[in-house]
Amino acid sequence: MGKGRLEAFSDGVIAIIITIMVLELKVPHGADLEALKPLMPNFLSYVLSFIYVGIYWNNHHHLLHAAKHVSGTILWANLNLLFWLSLFPFTTGWMGENHFAPLPSAAYGFVLLMAAISYYLLQRCIITADGQSSVLKRALGTDWKGKLSPLFNITAIGASFWAHWLAQFIYVLVALVWLVPDKRIERIIIQTEE
Amino acid sequence: MGKGRLEAFSDGVIAIIITIMVLELKVPHGADLEALKPLMPNFLSYVLSFIYVGIYWNNHHHLLHAAKHVSGTILWANLNLLFWLSLFPFTTGWMGENHFAPLPSAAYGFVLLMAAISYYLLQRCIITADGQSSVLKRALGTDWKGKLSPLFNITAIGASFWAHWLAQFIYVLVALVWLVPDKRIERIIIQTEE
Amino acid sequence: MGKGRLEAFSDGVIAIIITIMVLELKVPHGADLEALKPLMPNFLSYVLSFIYVGIYWNNHHHLLHAAKHVSGTILWANLNLLFWLSLFPFTTGWMGENHFAPLPSAAYGFVLLMAAISYYLLQRCIITADGQSSVLKRALGTDWKGKLSPLFNITAIGASFWAHWLAQFIYVLVALVWLVPDKRIERIIIQTEE
Amino acid sequence: MGKGRLEAFSDGVIAIIITIMVLELKVPHGADLEALKPLMPNFLSYVLSFIYVGIYWNNHHHLLHAAKHVSGTILWANLNLLFWLSLFPFTTGWMGENHFAPLPSAAYGFVLLMAAISYYLLQRCIITADGQSSVLKRALGTDWKGKLSPLFNITAIGASFWAHWLAQFIYVLVALVWLVPDKRIERIIIQTEE
Repeated sequence: MGKGRLEAFSDGVIAIIITIMVLELKVPHGADLEALKPLMPNFLSYVLSFIYVGIYWNNHHHLLHAAKHVSGTILWANLNLLFWLSLFPFTTGWMGENHFAPLPSAAYGFVLLMAAISYYLLQRCIITADGQSSVLKRALGTDWKGKLSPLFNITAIGASFWAHWLAQFIYVLVALVWLVPDKRIERIIIQTEE
Repeated sequence: MGKGRLEAFSDGVIAIIITIMVLELKVPHGADLEALKPLMPNFLSYVLSFIYVGIYWNNHHHLLHAAKHVSGTILWANLNLLFWLSLFPFTTGWMGENHFAPLPSAAYGFVLLMAAISYYLLQRCIITADGQSSVLKRALGTDWKGKLSPLFNITAIGASFWAHWLAQFIYVLVALVWLVPDKRIERIIIQTEE
Repeated sequence: MGKGRLEAFSDGVIAIIITIMVLELKVPHGADLEALKPLMPNFLSYVLSFIYVGIYWNNHHHLLHAAKHVSGTILWANLNLLFWLSLFPFTTGWMGENHFAPLPSAAYGFVLLMAAISYYLLQRCIITADGQSSVLKRALGTDWKGKLSPLFNITAIGASFWAHWLAQFIYVLVALVWLVPDKRIERIIIQTEE
Repeated sequence: MGKGRLEAFSDGVIAIIITIMVLELKVPHGADLEALKPLMPNFLSYVLSFIYVGIYWNNHHHLLHAAKHVSGTILWANLNLLFWLSLFPFTTGWMGENHFAPLPSAAYGFVLLMAAISYYLLQRCIITADGQSSVLKRALGTDWKGKLSPLFNITAIGASFWAHWLAQFIYVLVALVWLVPDKRIERIIIQTEE
């Protein structure tokens, strides 16, 4: 019941988040390269966040596809994930505006961490609701990506205050690891449907 | 006829409302904790409103699921609800910006009150359209939550001018009461479908 | 082919238009009634535009429901309508900001006029695509509302420069006339389906 | 699998892009024609971008309709296209704000170019995923529009620095060429379905 509407609502919110982030790229007043240059950090953090939101949309897509039941708990676990994703435009803009300064970089990592944890909780709720026969449970296996990401995020938050470029490096690294779509889920679903 | 499109349109509007509220969290210029601190009230009122809009989406979901007919009156009762929800970003921003000052807190409560009344009216329109056999009517029963909420909102509006923290306390309390999804509707629908 | 996606896209655009109009209601700095008072004209023009966009959504809903074929011409006639609707936030904000001054009031009426003409063109395209058997054609009948609205809008544009309150009066009047949903289309569709 | 959700997400993002571009049309403070005049370039670039985004939505619609399989690669090729489309509000605002100055005009052309290349890549991914039997492949034929557009965009970028009106002329010309919907795809699909 209602899985279609849950997907549609989540897609709507994620589509808006990914698009309003661009509003933090304020149109500069000058018309020369000098006017564009200070926007470079904003642009780079926009690209990074666009990729992260894209990854979440992509995986969310597979996650809900594998879910069989939608309970009240799942609705709220999903809203919790959307809440943390909705803070992306803020931390993206703050980090870009301040040229990757320590505290904004750490805040960026903190929101990434909370989103990762929320995604994990949503996964658990879906597995619990589907019980023993959960397709998702088998599909995830050891779920090393889901378990390692928070550790990387915590490391990056710490690194922000020591060498902020290390934090950025970790954010890009984690994004690259996730860029590979969740083939595991895809594979098991196909096996199950056969 | 048209229930799907009514749901899709409502979901779209609610998804946008829940997301553009974050635009009131203006990116600060500084990069230290001092720059973040004045945003705390904005952040807290954002969290509160996010939960309220989430509750409305959640219950709206159940409400339309239980509806059988969509009439012109229902379309307009629904637009009326969306209108009051669309004022959430404004009152949320105003209350946060002014650190929960009396008048903005009362305005926040007023919009909550009007949304609660609009929701109640939409419920009545659906029950009227479905007639005697209305699943929703049986599902709601005494509907004590729907009837008590406006009273609490009115109390909070009054309390805003006397002790604004009391108003905030009531807003959080009502949100907590509603956070429990409408199990009643869920239960009766399942019974009916059996 | 593609009617579902045309509806979904239009719903998305209309949902965003109706919601971002509220962003023109800028959160005031003060926390007293004095701070709220200058927003009154903005609020009133927001309410008026919310109703107009609601009317367009409502009728668009019926219009596409009655359409059988979606051609390339219909896609562009629809985008043309969405273009003029997308200017509502601008003229609404401009009229409110300038307390219903002559030129902004006339501009508001001009965008209303262009939207009405675009809606009429979209209607013609759908009737042409469906040919002799068009359900919509029979449903519309004389279509006096569709034919009178542009005349009223032109009158209001002229009146803006002479007595701007007369223009506002006409805008409200036309909205009230349209608030009654297109029962004609509803009725004929039901007859056809029987 | 998932084509519906891919379409819905893309429609959502495109609907938001086409609508938030209007937010760059800042409401002027004055209420006379003098206040409106400096907005003319912003308005013209808004119209041009609205048409371009409309064209992309239209062709994207046909493109996905012709696709049979949705792979992870297609999801990311699609997100890449959406990324470049999401920069339209920025370049549109920058070009309008600076009255079609050389660098902003070139930047506008650059984003158009990248969107055209991204669209081409998405097309290739869909053809590859569908293999020999690809409906899309036969439908595209020589695809002269898809191959010429980037050349025109590159010419326009160069022309921006020499005679910026020539660049604008080319942008309008390319839009007009594309305004004719992809009849080829439509035709072949109908043949295939027969």
